[in-house]
Amino acid sequence: MRTQVAIVGAGPAGLMLGRLLELAGIDTVVLERRSESHVLGRIRAGILEQGTVDLMDRAQVGERLHVEGLIHHGVELSFDGDRHRLDFSRLVGREVMVYGQTEVTRDLMAARQATTIYRAEGIVLHDFDTSHPWISYQAGGESHRLACDFICGCDGYHGVSRQSVPTGAITSFERVYPFGWLGVLVDKPPVAPELIYAHHERGFALCSQRSPVRSRYYIQVPTDERAEDWSDDRFWDELRARLPADVAAAVETGASIEKSVAPLRSFVAEPLRFGRLFLAGDAAHIVPPTGAKGLNLAMRDVASLADALAEYYAETSSAGIDAYSAHALHRIWRAERFSWWMTNLLHSFPETGPFGRRIQRAEFDYLTQSTAAQMSLAENYTGFPD
Amino acid sequence: MRTQVAIVGAGPAGLMLGRLLELAGIDTVVLERRSESHVLGRIRAGILEQGTVDLMDRAQVGERLHVEGLIHHGVELSFDGDRHRLDFSRLVGREVMVYGQTEVTRDLMAARQATTIYRAEGIVLHDFDTSHPWISYQAGGESHRLACDFICGCDGYHGVSRQSVPTGAITSFERVYPFGWLGVLVDKPPVAPELIYAHHERGFALCSQRSPVRSRYYIQVPTDERAEDWSDDRFWDELRARLPADVAAAVETGASIEKSVAPLRSFVAEPLRFGRLFLAGDAAHIVPPTGAKGLNLAMRDVASLADALAEYYAETSSAGIDAYSAHALHRIWRAERFSWWMTNLLHSFPETGPFGRRIQRAEFDYLTQSTAAQMSLAENYTGFPD
Repeated sequence: MRTQVAIVGAGPAGLMLGRLLELAGIDTVVLERRSESHVLGRIRAGILEQGTVDLMDRAQVGERLHVEGLIHHGVELSFDGDRHRLDFSRLVGREVMVYGQTEVTRDLMAARQATTIYRAEGIVLHDFDTSHPWISYQAGGESHRLACDFICGCDGYHGVSRQSVPTGAITSFERVYPFGWLGVLVDKPPVAPELIYAHHERGFALCSQRSPVRSRYYIQVPTDERAEDWSDDRFWDELRARLPADVAAAVETGASIEKSVAPLRSFVAEPLRFGRLFLAGDAAHIVPPTGAKGLNLAMRDVASLADALAEYYAETSSAGIDAYSAHALHRIWRAERFSWWMTNLLHSFPETGPFGRRIQRAEFDYLTQSTAAQMSLAENYTGFPD
Repeated sequence: MRTQVAIVGAGPAGLMLGRLLELAGIDTVVLERRSESHVLGRIRAGILEQGTVDLMDRAQVGERLHVEGLIHHGVELSFDGDRHRLDFSRLVGREVMVYGQTEVTRDLMAARQATTIYRAEGIVLHDFDTSHPWISYQAGGESHRLACDFICGCDGYHGVSRQSVPTGAITSFERVYPFGWLGVLVDKPPVAPELIYAHHERGFALCSQRSPVRSRYYIQVPTDERAEDWSDDRFWDELRARLPADVAAAVETGASIEKSVAPLRSFVAEPLRFGRLFLAGDAAHIVPPTGAKGLNLAMRDVASLADALAEYYAETSSAGIDAYSAHALHRIWRAERFSWWMTNLLHSFPETGPFGRRIQRAEFDYLTQSTAAQMSLAENYTGFPD
């Protein structure tokens, strides 16, 4: 089998890249290690920047999003019970949209015309340092070979694409936080119309949502905590202990329909191009979920990669693909900085001691009083226009 | 001897407090452990916020400052040689003034009418938890007793005032940085009209100035470094290695007239009042010099303390002195946060590794591109109106 662009990974990044290339008349094959239902079962972020909404429209998959997505004009921050709302519309004239990553994936799956091979096992990338890269894999009990012009690795942090790069050719930057997020999904209306990010000395908590009838709550827990050790009751008690009293009293609890612990990590691999192999999204970089940048950043990566590849095929120009890595890394580090900063502000870090905690409080107080500081948070949270 | 307000410490904070109380018709005695010439020999910061300039005017000691002080409309930041100027006037409509702390002290000394006792040894504070505090000390070979209504501790980080408070009554917050600043004073014109704060992988460097013919340069060094181990040549070589090439080439070097290492520390003691004892300035809080907040913060402390004491004597109201600590601490933590942040941005911290260094770079890049981020830095650097 042969294609122009082989895409590894059928998450939202890989599917969006495939969709944009398809619309540009470029042939693609998507290889995915997991099943379609497994991909759709992943619960991830749900905050889309305007740029991501625009990209969904450009990809002609925005119809349902505009019906079901909820526009959020701001967020609320809380620090030991003191509350402050940031009004993004007023501060920077931009908003965000609540629309689950799972729904983004579903919309992209439904639109895709070209080949997607699920349960593609034993994927190996070959010869991407030449002009004739190819991928070997097994599917349906048989070995296959996919020849292509380019390979795009959209297969996430644990995927094979980044791991295929020779060690000396890639540099990694990493900060592993000493905690994770225990998340619970529940079919109850959200406690508040907007997200509430809460710093508390017991640890961070987040009131989030996926729809008017589905809520997502998180609490900071030690990295080695296991979701099985948290009964629903224990989770709700701990969540309420970290929220402002009136919010805590208003949370509608119920039986969790998903409960899991995700570690928090900042990670960037440089560069994003190795000959005919490109990395995009989580395959190249991870942000902690504070600030909701991960999905949006992946979408920016593949949008610029699609443009670069379209330019290559239409104009036989490599200018776009040559510039992809440097341009993307600039954007990535901007989001990494913001996510790192917001994580530092809102979580409990016993290792920084009482001074560190007072600095967090001072940062919160400064945020509540400075329009410049609020604008800075708002422009990062809602995303920069490209 | 008896006075209304006994002030411990004849640095700029103590002298300004004495001056403001004097103008309010309140009797003060200043006790200083060192000699007058020792106090004037201390080389300290030289950047005055507009609020400090206004306070000098209010204290009727601003005449020379307005002749000799240099208005700075911005600063320059450099990161591994890349440069960016922040225009404070454009960003926040405020400026700062370069005028050495030594000159501030000199002007306040010259204006002071009331008693200052230099070389007051063995100072002990008594009974400040009663309405009849008093201070014992030795001067001129004799023991003395100074009775007063209030004691104001303006005697710096190492002074006796804070140390007189019972351990259980005071809480300290501290971050000691793993480096200091090696500073050199030289009678040569400054290399640039404005300050240059330079991050370099070899460490931080600062091009500062005291007048059109006197410059002050600093480099980050390990905490245990000794000034004696740095010849002038070694200092200039290291400074130039950390500056952008054209700046390095333009530095006018010469024989140092002062050279010393100052450790970097963030420190806050809470509260600032213990019965009839008040703490102000470095006696209560230390900021690292990055951002030039120390002197300005001390001046804010004593301005509000002077107002509170004047209110007490004029209206027999303790509202002002009751509110002093909480109000001052709010301002102090705001400046602590800013100084900590600017220190983190600009210094080399090997312990945060390659990821930490990229975050610093991302912070610098973000600063160069975001008006909101620039405004945030500028409003903190130039100081908030009260």
